[in-house]
Amino acid sequence: MKLVVDTMGGDLGSGVIVEGILDFLKQNPNVEIIAVGRKEDLTALEGKCRIIHAPDIVPMEAGALEVMRLRNSSMMVALKLLKDEQLDGIISCGSTGGFLAASTITLKLITGVKRAALVAPFPTYIKGKKVVILDIGANNENSPEELHQFAVMGRLYSQSVFGVKEPQVFLLSNGTEEGKGSPEVKEAQKLLKDFPGYQGNIEARVALDGRADVIVTDGFTGNVFLKGTEGIAKFMSSLMKKAFKKNFWTKLGYLHVRKGIKEIAETMDYKSTGGAMLLGLNGVVVKAHGSSDAYSFKCALDVAKKLAENKVIDKIKEGMSNV
Amino acid sequence: MKLVVDTMGGDLGSGVIVEGILDFLKQNPNVEIIAVGRKEDLTALEGKCRIIHAPDIVPMEAGALEVMRLRNSSMMVALKLLKDEQLDGIISCGSTGGFLAASTITLKLITGVKRAALVAPFPTYIKGKKVVILDIGANNENSPEELHQFAVMGRLYSQSVFGVKEPQVFLLSNGTEEGKGSPEVKEAQKLLKDFPGYQGNIEARVALDGRADVIVTDGFTGNVFLKGTEGIAKFMSSLMKKAFKKNFWTKLGYLHVRKGIKEIAETMDYKSTGGAMLLGLNGVVVKAHGSSDAYSFKCALDVAKKLAENKVIDKIKEGMSNV
Repeated sequence: MKLVVDTMGGDLGSGVIVEGILDFLKQNPNVEIIAVGRKEDLTALEGKCRIIHAPDIVPMEAGALEVMRLRNSSMMVALKLLKDEQLDGIISCGSTGGFLAASTITLKLITGVKRAALVAPFPTYIKGKKVVILDIGANNENSPEELHQFAVMGRLYSQSVFGVKEPQVFLLSNGTEEGKGSPEVKEAQKLLKDFPGYQGNIEARVALDGRADVIVTDGFTGNVFLKGTEGIAKFMSSLMKKAFKKNFWTKLGYLHVRKGIKEIAETMDYKSTGGAMLLGLNGVVVKAHGSSDAYSFKCALDVAKKLAENKVIDKIKEGMSNV
Repeated sequence: MKLVVDTMGGDLGSGVIVEGILDFLKQNPNVEIIAVGRKEDLTALEGKCRIIHAPDIVPMEAGALEVMRLRNSSMMVALKLLKDEQLDGIISCGSTGGFLAASTITLKLITGVKRAALVAPFPTYIKGKKVVILDIGANNENSPEELHQFAVMGRLYSQSVFGVKEPQVFLLSNGTEEGKGSPEVKEAQKLLKDFPGYQGNIEARVALDGRADVIVTDGFTGNVFLKGTEGIAKFMSSLMKKAFKKNFWTKLGYLHVRKGIKEIAETMDYKSTGGAMLLGLNGVVVKAHGSSDAYSFKCALDVAKKLAENKVIDKIKEGMSNV
């Protein structure tokens, strides 16, 4: 297996990416990593990876056109390598918009797929169980047909990455009753009527309670849900820390629940999910968090490996040809 | 001032509603309350309120047509009283859909208003500061023009209820840059360009950090945001409780941070906001939470009083005639 890594564009610099790669290689000595970036930043990888020099960096705010013009950027060079050498996957923590545009143009959409979707597993109330939500931000709007395709791709993702045999698939809506929802959601309900594992609408209130394996939503709503969730989790954590810092006794109290609080933080930690995948493209394309640290980037590599091993792309191609 | 109360339809029965009314009257002896419901449930209010007997209850799941047929229901009788006697406001904790339909048909929309919006103040990271978000669930979709109207009504609500002189108004979107958003949001950006206090897009991640006084969104997205937020807050609270219950030492720890944890719960407590108002109708229409307890129902009465005192309806009428 060969994975190509764009080592630039992360908020914390190439150092943490290099560290993440080394951690990954320790556990996966049989995987070949091709590291693309400024070669002077990648000396720690010498002898362990193929290193490709690409001096330019894609700025975080870069639009599609700007990315395409940056031919010597680590992102563009890595994408071209993936395509030319038919590698098994690419991982980058660069700008989402730029990465989406560049990979769509370079790799093309799978035949029949109308739009790529950004998909990420979320933590649930059930320890260890994740729920796959898509689209969480590749699109600004989605048609009922696109929502139906997201269900197809999300189901295959859940089966391949989490080994769920018969994923329970829901549509995110503003009420559980049939007929509740935006016009697109209402239409999608009809298209999904006989879809395997389809359970109807789900409300945001219980989206993470563990009943769902896959939740389908348009990219606008999914993004609001993702970011709203992150915002509240952060807010409550900071309130909690404040509560413990009040005085000597509360600090003493903290010593006793420290472990429990750490577990909460880990449950809510989106980093451990290893970033999001761009589903629908001819290739395993993993978008790691912009603020990835070494651990979280290693998790992103794990996700890419798992997706490649399980031939998710072939399965989606097959799935799409049957729709 | 005269407020009419639908005392039925709450999850906890009429008892807590009666209690809420008595608490409210203690603080507001000059307000006249007209209590509508089964008179045998309202004996504690005798001599303190006008009591109107209405034996039927609107079921939680009732649709618009069913509500309209239930002419002897406490909700319909209360709405008719509001209209016929030109009372200052109505409060109910019955079904949102039913209440919306019944009050729209009975009271009619303010001239120029295309759609009523459900509006509620959310807690923010800044202690005591609330942000007004609308629509959070009256509609399944909204046009750019409707979003613009929500901005008008939300601004007047923020000024009247919270005394904010120049409310900072944002559009909820999937990115802060202009041009980011669903097609409706992008159009609304243009309509709001010169709107007083308009600050552009806001992401869900920072929606509650206190920078915004008013956040405008369509009813579908707003509902997903509201419920997602509630879900995560509940989830984290339960994780926290679990952490404290682990053993003797963690229980001891809890004693020390109990006050802080209570403060967190209060900050995140949507009950203290007193429920949501249906904005855009010819009358002060307050929807209390279905699961209202006495305190939360008393808060809903406070909101209705404040809205009536500040002549929000007149201001919206004036505001709409200037659009």
